[in-house]
Amino acid sequence: MPQTSLMMTLQFSSSGTPVNVQAKHFLIPGLGRYDHKYSPKLPSKFPKASIFNSHQIPNPILHQPPVNQSVAAIVFGDGSESRLYPLTKRRSEGAIPIASNYRLIDAVVSNCINSNINKIYALTQFNSTSLNSHLSRAYSGASLGKEGFVEVIAAYQSPEDLGWFQGTADAIRRCLWVLEEYPVAEFLVLPGHHLYKMDYQKVIESHRNRKSDITIVASNGITKRDQDQGVGVLKINTENQVMQYSLKSNKEPVNYAVAETLTRCNDSSYSYIPSMGIYLINRATMVNLLNNHFPKAMDFGTEVIRGALSLGMKVEAYLFEGYWEDMRSIEAFYQANMECIKKLNTGYNSFCDRDSPVYTIPRNLPPTVVNDAMITDSVIGDGCILNRCKIKSTVVGMRTKIRDGAIIEDSVIMGSDVYQIEDGRESSIKSTSVPIGIGENTEIRKAIVDKNARIGKNVKIINKDNVEEGDREANGYVISGRIMVVLRSAEIPDNSIL
Amino acid sequence: MPQTSLMMTLQFSSSGTPVNVQAKHFLIPGLGRYDHKYSPKLPSKFPKASIFNSHQIPNPILHQPPVNQSVAAIVFGDGSESRLYPLTKRRSEGAIPIASNYRLIDAVVSNCINSNINKIYALTQFNSTSLNSHLSRAYSGASLGKEGFVEVIAAYQSPEDLGWFQGTADAIRRCLWVLEEYPVAEFLVLPGHHLYKMDYQKVIESHRNRKSDITIVASNGITKRDQDQGVGVLKINTENQVMQYSLKSNKEPVNYAVAETLTRCNDSSYSYIPSMGIYLINRATMVNLLNNHFPKAMDFGTEVIRGALSLGMKVEAYLFEGYWEDMRSIEAFYQANMECIKKLNTGYNSFCDRDSPVYTIPRNLPPTVVNDAMITDSVIGDGCILNRCKIKSTVVGMRTKIRDGAIIEDSVIMGSDVYQIEDGRESSIKSTSVPIGIGENTEIRKAIVDKNARIGKNVKIINKDNVEEGDREANGYVISGRIMVVLRSAEIPDNSIL
Amino acid sequence: MPQTSLMMTLQFSSSGTPVNVQAKHFLIPGLGRYDHKYSPKLPSKFPKASIFNSHQIPNPILHQPPVNQSVAAIVFGDGSESRLYPLTKRRSEGAIPIASNYRLIDAVVSNCINSNINKIYALTQFNSTSLNSHLSRAYSGASLGKEGFVEVIAAYQSPEDLGWFQGTADAIRRCLWVLEEYPVAEFLVLPGHHLYKMDYQKVIESHRNRKSDITIVASNGITKRDQDQGVGVLKINTENQVMQYSLKSNKEPVNYAVAETLTRCNDSSYSYIPSMGIYLINRATMVNLLNNHFPKAMDFGTEVIRGALSLGMKVEAYLFEGYWEDMRSIEAFYQANMECIKKLNTGYNSFCDRDSPVYTIPRNLPPTVVNDAMITDSVIGDGCILNRCKIKSTVVGMRTKIRDGAIIEDSVIMGSDVYQIEDGRESSIKSTSVPIGIGENTEIRKAIVDKNARIGKNVKIINKDNVEEGDREANGYVISGRIMVVLRSAEIPDNSIL
Amino acid sequence: MPQTSLMMTLQFSSSGTPVNVQAKHFLIPGLGRYDHKYSPKLPSKFPKASIFNSHQIPNPILHQPPVNQSVAAIVFGDGSESRLYPLTKRRSEGAIPIASNYRLIDAVVSNCINSNINKIYALTQFNSTSLNSHLSRAYSGASLGKEGFVEVIAAYQSPEDLGWFQGTADAIRRCLWVLEEYPVAEFLVLPGHHLYKMDYQKVIESHRNRKSDITIVASNGITKRDQDQGVGVLKINTENQVMQYSLKSNKEPVNYAVAETLTRCNDSSYSYIPSMGIYLINRATMVNLLNNHFPKAMDFGTEVIRGALSLGMKVEAYLFEGYWEDMRSIEAFYQANMECIKKLNTGYNSFCDRDSPVYTIPRNLPPTVVNDAMITDSVIGDGCILNRCKIKSTVVGMRTKIRDGAIIEDSVIMGSDVYQIEDGRESSIKSTSVPIGIGENTEIRKAIVDKNARIGKNVKIINKDNVEEGDREANGYVISGRIMVVLRSAEIPDNSIL
Repeated sequence: MPQTSLMMTLQFSSSGTPVNVQAKHFLIPGLGRYDHKYSPKLPSKFPKASIFNSHQIPNPILHQPPVNQSVAAIVFGDGSESRLYPLTKRRSEGAIPIASNYRLIDAVVSNCINSNINKIYALTQFNSTSLNSHLSRAYSGASLGKEGFVEVIAAYQSPEDLGWFQGTADAIRRCLWVLEEYPVAEFLVLPGHHLYKMDYQKVIESHRNRKSDITIVASNGITKRDQDQGVGVLKINTENQVMQYSLKSNKEPVNYAVAETLTRCNDSSYSYIPSMGIYLINRATMVNLLNNHFPKAMDFGTEVIRGALSLGMKVEAYLFEGYWEDMRSIEAFYQANMECIKKLNTGYNSFCDRDSPVYTIPRNLPPTVVNDAMITDSVIGDGCILNRCKIKSTVVGMRTKIRDGAIIEDSVIMGSDVYQIEDGRESSIKSTSVPIGIGENTEIRKAIVDKNARIGKNVKIINKDNVEEGDREANGYVISGRIMVVLRSAEIPDNSIL
Repeated sequence: MPQTSLMMTLQFSSSGTPVNVQAKHFLIPGLGRYDHKYSPKLPSKFPKASIFNSHQIPNPILHQPPVNQSVAAIVFGDGSESRLYPLTKRRSEGAIPIASNYRLIDAVVSNCINSNINKIYALTQFNSTSLNSHLSRAYSGASLGKEGFVEVIAAYQSPEDLGWFQGTADAIRRCLWVLEEYPVAEFLVLPGHHLYKMDYQKVIESHRNRKSDITIVASNGITKRDQDQGVGVLKINTENQVMQYSLKSNKEPVNYAVAETLTRCNDSSYSYIPSMGIYLINRATMVNLLNNHFPKAMDFGTEVIRGALSLGMKVEAYLFEGYWEDMRSIEAFYQANMECIKKLNTGYNSFCDRDSPVYTIPRNLPPTVVNDAMITDSVIGDGCILNRCKIKSTVVGMRTKIRDGAIIEDSVIMGSDVYQIEDGRESSIKSTSVPIGIGENTEIRKAIVDKNARIGKNVKIINKDNVEEGDREANGYVISGRIMVVLRSAEIPDNSIL
Repeated sequence: MPQTSLMMTLQFSSSGTPVNVQAKHFLIPGLGRYDHKYSPKLPSKFPKASIFNSHQIPNPILHQPPVNQSVAAIVFGDGSESRLYPLTKRRSEGAIPIASNYRLIDAVVSNCINSNINKIYALTQFNSTSLNSHLSRAYSGASLGKEGFVEVIAAYQSPEDLGWFQGTADAIRRCLWVLEEYPVAEFLVLPGHHLYKMDYQKVIESHRNRKSDITIVASNGITKRDQDQGVGVLKINTENQVMQYSLKSNKEPVNYAVAETLTRCNDSSYSYIPSMGIYLINRATMVNLLNNHFPKAMDFGTEVIRGALSLGMKVEAYLFEGYWEDMRSIEAFYQANMECIKKLNTGYNSFCDRDSPVYTIPRNLPPTVVNDAMITDSVIGDGCILNRCKIKSTVVGMRTKIRDGAIIEDSVIMGSDVYQIEDGRESSIKSTSVPIGIGENTEIRKAIVDKNARIGKNVKIINKDNVEEGDREANGYVISGRIMVVLRSAEIPDNSIL
Repeated sequence: MPQTSLMMTLQFSSSGTPVNVQAKHFLIPGLGRYDHKYSPKLPSKFPKASIFNSHQIPNPILHQPPVNQSVAAIVFGDGSESRLYPLTKRRSEGAIPIASNYRLIDAVVSNCINSNINKIYALTQFNSTSLNSHLSRAYSGASLGKEGFVEVIAAYQSPEDLGWFQGTADAIRRCLWVLEEYPVAEFLVLPGHHLYKMDYQKVIESHRNRKSDITIVASNGITKRDQDQGVGVLKINTENQVMQYSLKSNKEPVNYAVAETLTRCNDSSYSYIPSMGIYLINRATMVNLLNNHFPKAMDFGTEVIRGALSLGMKVEAYLFEGYWEDMRSIEAFYQANMECIKKLNTGYNSFCDRDSPVYTIPRNLPPTVVNDAMITDSVIGDGCILNRCKIKSTVVGMRTKIRDGAIIEDSVIMGSDVYQIEDGRESSIKSTSVPIGIGENTEIRKAIVDKNARIGKNVKIINKDNVEEGDREANGYVISGRIMVVLRSAEIPDNSIL
């Protein structure tokens, strides 16, 4: 069992902050980060009655049944308010290509499958088309075993309810009638755009052994994201019991170092630790919280979890020490790809190692054809065509075509959905002079090139002016954290120097 | 080639009618019927330029290529403003069970497959969960052949566009970026909730031979639905060219008989014929109309088709003489089931005959167990349990359990998603005394019993007061056109007499 | 834990019987029954060395790993020397249709899947075409989960080995190079033509807890098959340790009652109990026995098991008390179908109940159409057409067509692979006046009608002369145990009285 | 329409050669090559009656129906007498890996699919295990469309027939009861181990237009294989009608050049051209020939085709001018791989180009990881791990691991079925010091390294003694045509110099 490595006692207080929530299209807020100022009004007094204890409701599952019959996963396929734009211009976060052959959501779904959880509901609404398509092609029955499924629940209209999901809690509440189809014992709520490798069975085991109502997975690893605003922060005691759920805000950062020095009363019995937005929650507890206690709660973390705490429920933290990346920004995404290459032990190398498989759409591509390439510290996807080129520290995606003389370094090339000429899937209307792929004698450094991009000849994508942030979307690219991001299907004319 | 059997000349004019459109959640309005008063403002002057002629744009497909490579179908999976409530309470029209083993949308998708069209996009938004689930389980690759797919495009939010589809034209416009993936020559627009058997290849052949911009399939069969309000009506000349697209409204019905007698000038060169809401339209024409000419059009029939006519495009009618039912009401749905039983030649017997298969989710149910049953003129789905009972003129759905002494006549029993006790999929929380199925000594006449209903013992569902229309939803049923409709998962206590 | 109900001490001795083996095409002899006289020459002296103990070989699997990763099943898909002729004329035993919708082998494969064993090798050679086809269609990935498969290993020729499998041991030995692909801990050897429902996980648990080399499942139920010749009989002590493996022969029946009275010394510490031909055996033990100790053994039961006993290995019996039917004869097959109907608790009702699913090819047939039928105590498969007819105590298979006036009692109608007219799969060459199905006014009693049979009008299949056994194959039928068996695709002309 | 480029008139006569056939396990002899001396005794006199004309039998298919409903392919999955040993030691020819990601048979099956033929029977018997497994995994429904299948028919025993297939004609005859399931108009007989890209629809069109009984595809391309012994040679007239079918034997080579000069009477109306072993034959003709006229014929080419000619049937040649390779030897296989790299226009570049897909098992491998490689003119399969190495003119198969310092040139590395350590599929018993893959500082030139081979460190596989042919099987390799062939799973110890 992991141990908390940080001990601090300063109680984080955000309760006084007034907020104005615009419930536009934020699915993920409570799932690990949160960008809004928000102060949900919790009911001041809750009856401390036994009805909150789901264990008193006759549990249909005895003796800790097999995980694949007793736990259903709820994956949020898309975040919103994403800082991953422009990668999310036409797709949700979960559908972003990563590590040459995969989509981001494959990491979480594969975690489920490898943890023997095969009842998986994916809730989607934001730019969901490509994600829905990916999920139904990648996980249709095969490899999910008896009664296993990945079921996409897209936001929908109904006679009672015409609007979009208003947050994570609202989304789950509206889908409860579907989610309750199988008599599972617990729901496992998962953000779909995080990158990590976890055996959820250990979380389930801990949850059941401790007879918790809710278990929250928290990151005990050495990551930098506890400095981020919007991250949910758990105050836990030495038994890993969660005492408080807070949000790290812009103005009031949780400075752990300071927190520790400010410890009053020498009280080292509490720690602050960032939530990973992963919740294991008893089925009956879920229904009770969403329908009875907080029927208007929209966000899961700030409203439902806080509410459960206020009701005196048993909320525990499960500390996870491995690599965890929540793709909170273009830079984080870029780093995750670079770490995939480096195969650092501390990094999430799930895509690149072979310990346990990461699933995705099974494909049938021809082998990669290499004419004359020097390739260093790179990862090459299926079915590429690499002419005379140099590739270094780069993730090269499926069907990438790199032409003579090209030099690619420190970059992420997402590849192409099609072979341009050969299979005729290209639009007949658009007639373009620049073909899909990387043109002759083109140089690319520290860039992300989205799918189906058409980079001409003698192009330099090198951030020549060393811009930190720049929106050149009309020209087909964006600069974010000094990283050049070429848009999906963008066309960069010959001889451009960016 | 079918011949028009009605010849009339009165020009139907609805152009003067002012309308007030409430763009709530109407996906299907223009697809064969229309309930709103509406008068779209067409641009007064259109350049009669060659740009309208899609044939001048180099067509990527020569020599009438195989249908499966050159046509993509766009199926509207759900109507709204449905008069099929309560069958649509938790599902869209396309997901309504029909003919024991099927869902309504299976008819149209199977028409596509049997017509060699294997690129099928299903656009959904209204109560779409069950429909999405059905489509992805039923049509995941198998039987769709090389590069075939049924791709569900659920309504979604995006940075540019936060709202729901605002009608059929709007839905197609927003999805064009997906629909244009393959270089098809034509799009085939299809309502997903109609019942008929058609070889679309004949429509395509006619369209190509006549070099039409748009071909609209119109019903030349002997049906009663040309009396319905909201039906789109085509005025066609003797060459089947469409001269006008009108809506039949409440106040201003198209009385064909009268129309004929009112013919002025002895002009018998025009006919009025109801549109089936099926449009075959050249790809470039579609893009032009939606993006360039009518970028704000919401409805396909009243706005885009009328607009195309006003632009002088070549719009032709293809006359279809077979059985066609558009499920416009509970009664129509009920009759379609009864006709399925009767296997009338005029009726749509596609589900019941074996001429060409209707596809659905492949299943693996045990055989039907019959203890002692007299069964007359009925259709029995897979995996039923029929104890000592009498069944007459009834459609019995999958997994239906009918207990001793029950009598069922002239009814539609939709069956159950689960075997109640045995597979444990029932919610553990809900404890109910009435089991799923039809109880002992219960009598049911002229009723539709939705899925998973629990009908107790000694119940009579006979519309005892001969009510025409009645909303007893709180009691678990609704009366529509004297047909008793028991709601999904409703529980009718023992000894009830309805 | 089941208790032995028979206590006897007479040591069964068959060792003196000289035998003449004709190794024609007997795959299954040792798997539960044996028709040949045979006396394998066991090596007279075996070193009682530790090398026999597979536990000393480092076991790759620790801590009793999940069954689906540590056990592979070897299913013998076909018996030979079958007494099920003519049902086996064109198919192996495992491919015989049973219970309307299934094939015999589905019972064993479903037992595996329901026991979480998902690595299944099916060894076939005798009339294997239909069985191979069935297995690859029914179990291709779906429902088998991660890394699960049903792999058909058909007998094959190779440079080293030109002949057929010479028995069960020989078949396994030749396939070891395939079977060893996954590092499983144990192999589970299963006859594919038996009918029973068993959770093999209990066998595995017992085997591992007792640290056995080999566990043999033996039937402790009340069955009549211990009177059959050829059944393997285990002599076990009170700890269920196997002391001896014998064959019940024609001339020297194991008369248990007599055996008991002949008990010498009042020694009640031994029992005789029939083997079910199910062996769980450690992987290393299997390899050792087949390759090192008995490299020429052909039959698993009489040679390898006896050999293991002679080597002093730890061979245990697992007693199974449920229903078990090994389809040793037409009569047994007929009774199994009748019991399926009766759903006796003592009978194998797996096909008819819904406790745990029996898998087979997922299908997509139209519902059964019933015009006017009285059906009693019967089971009806998918997609039948039942006109005005009476059906009693009958198993009606898929796509059966029964015409007006027909009466069917106490029979097994296997149905049809095709709908005759509609889908055109019928041979165009064969022009026949009698259509597939049961003709008008035909009467069938106590018969098995194989697939695609064409029974004319006014036919009586009633065994009019009360024949016990009769070979009328030229006329399209066979009589076995007074049961009329109409051959596959046979044509019985109008007005025949059989 | 291709034109014959060779014109010669010498009638090739082999009829006088007495032969002694050893019908061991030769499946493919007549399919393009033949090693045996053989003189089938044709019936001396055949009635030239109309019964031979299949067109008089009412053809169920009118108006040239769609190919996918009217033609079934019969693919011979395995040859025997193969000169591809040791690649065929544990597999049939069709299962040999080629072009990194494929198996040889994928070429022919993909030709079928791309020609819209989706009813494919694969007849197998020789070392068929891996082939059967491949086919059922690669072609189970997906991409085969409505009613499409690849059905493996393994040789089997039956009551009537205990032996193996005795040749191609015998194999088809025995399987006719299966092959006749669908009412196709023609059978297309295909060797499964040839490499070429052909649209069979053109052959079918020619066959139907010319109303032929049999159409034989013959190679009109510039290949060297017309010098091979055992090739079937067609004598055709200027209308491409086949006049004679001969075998090119060792002693009596068909020397085309000489043939031409020896032309008597200046008769240039005949040509000799090598058969590709591809036969399109009317269904009824097939049945007639195999069952009625030549019920004992074993080989299709030498017996059935010759017989058909002697009966006066209309046998036509379809001339194919593209690349064709029949993998008659290790050298031919090696050259085919090299040509795949070179992408010569004259070569079969189907695997490497993207014109039309070649299908195989869909996979889900991680991207190839490259640490520091110089790769020239090579093809890299999915999921490789390439450390600091140089690769030139080499086909690198799936999951190949190449370690630091290795140099590979002009070679075919087939890769591995597993990742050695990571997924644990390796046998636990075999403990080996040399891991799977290519060891450090190892040098490989002009070699074929079969799957799962373990090449140690500092090894040189360079044919140091420049041996032409050599059998070092005990040492893990064979030399054939100066090409080093390392056996499947062979272990080459560190520092070996071969």
